[in-house]
Amino acid sequence: MKSSRKELWFNTPTRRAFINITRQVEAALAESGVREGLVLVNAMHISASVFINDDEPGLHRDYEAWLERLAPHEPLDQYRHNDTGEDNADAHIKRQVMGREVVVAVTECRLDFGPWEQIFYGEFDGMRRKRVLVKIIGE
Amino acid sequence: MKSSRKELWFNTPTRRAFINITRQVEAALAESGVREGLVLVNAMHISASVFINDDEPGLHRDYEAWLERLAPHEPLDQYRHNDTGEDNADAHIKRQVMGREVVVAVTECRLDFGPWEQIFYGEFDGMRRKRVLVKIIGE
Amino acid sequence: MKSSRKELWFNTPTRRAFINITRQVEAALAESGVREGLVLVNAMHISASVFINDDEPGLHRDYEAWLERLAPHEPLDQYRHNDTGEDNADAHIKRQVMGREVVVAVTECRLDFGPWEQIFYGEFDGMRRKRVLVKIIGE
Repeated sequence: MKSSRKELWFNTPTRRAFINITRQVEAALAESGVREGLVLVNAMHISASVFINDDEPGLHRDYEAWLERLAPHEPLDQYRHNDTGEDNADAHIKRQVMGREVVVAVTECRLDFGPWEQIFYGEFDGMRRKRVLVKIIGE
Repeated sequence: MKSSRKELWFNTPTRRAFINITRQVEAALAESGVREGLVLVNAMHISASVFINDDEPGLHRDYEAWLERLAPHEPLDQYRHNDTGEDNADAHIKRQVMGREVVVAVTECRLDFGPWEQIFYGEFDGMRRKRVLVKIIGE
Repeated sequence: MKSSRKELWFNTPTRRAFINITRQVEAALAESGVREGLVLVNAMHISASVFINDDEPGLHRDYEAWLERLAPHEPLDQYRHNDTGEDNADAHIKRQVMGREVVVAVTECRLDFGPWEQIFYGEFDGMRRKRVLVKIIGE
């Protein structure tokens, strides 16, 4: 069995952002030399997500607006987590809706994807350095 | 390490549907010859889900009604994704709530399931041919 | 390839609860002897979740309140699943939002976690014995 590990780092200029990381995951896969196996891609922080969906800016605005209705950032005092001095309770909830991780099949050295699948980093409490883990196992 | 790959195809007669695919995943596992490992089952399309829950029609009607309240299909113009000419922004959101994939343990050649776990394909933008990937790794 | 399997059992005194199971997953990993690989941790019941987030009691109260707004337990007759004599339709929905499973990388014999990642069992229909599966594969 082969395994490999790579960290991707992000520092978004805005509190919330969606970043297409498909090319970076493909690069990590190429480096790993794995031909058949699984790739795990997960946020290492609990106020960020990794998810697979469409690379279409209108859809990303829809996600942003929908998540903000579902778990608004303000007023801050609606969340007990923010009583600790944090202001990111909404980010923990948004990350839970969008997911922590994706697992992707590797077939013949490639991400085994349908036509429109793209991997995104979803940041809900940005403007600081945060990480994604890419772990690959297989042969 | 062994690995295997199988595609399951669907073409639902309705826009939205839930289909129990447990038997098909079990058949793919039997074909693979894997005794111990992991099965990844994922939608290859970004407006469909794979999830594990109860095979009970009342619950499926509850999911349908609840998802429609959370992200209504209409009016179409409430979503910026639909400005592109699409009408399926709600389907991308519903899929995100229900999930893209499940990972299931394989133990002694079987899906290592609790008493009520069943795997479903969740279609949110159907009436066309779409795929699910079953990737199995192990020994 | 090595593989191992362990069940964790719970019987919560309340209908709903969040329990930190990180230490128990670490113990299962240590027993397995796996140095590089993947750990799958999943609820074996369809009205419970396994998820990764912050071990902060205020946040857990926020999740509880937010999930109850999203899919209230009562009135029971708002759900068709409860027409079967069950009273846990809300639990099936809450579990879907919070997720069935997590997949965690194993690197140099340890859970490959960011600074605040902790694994939780989320119970939405407790007061009875229920299980979590920990399946580990690697080398």
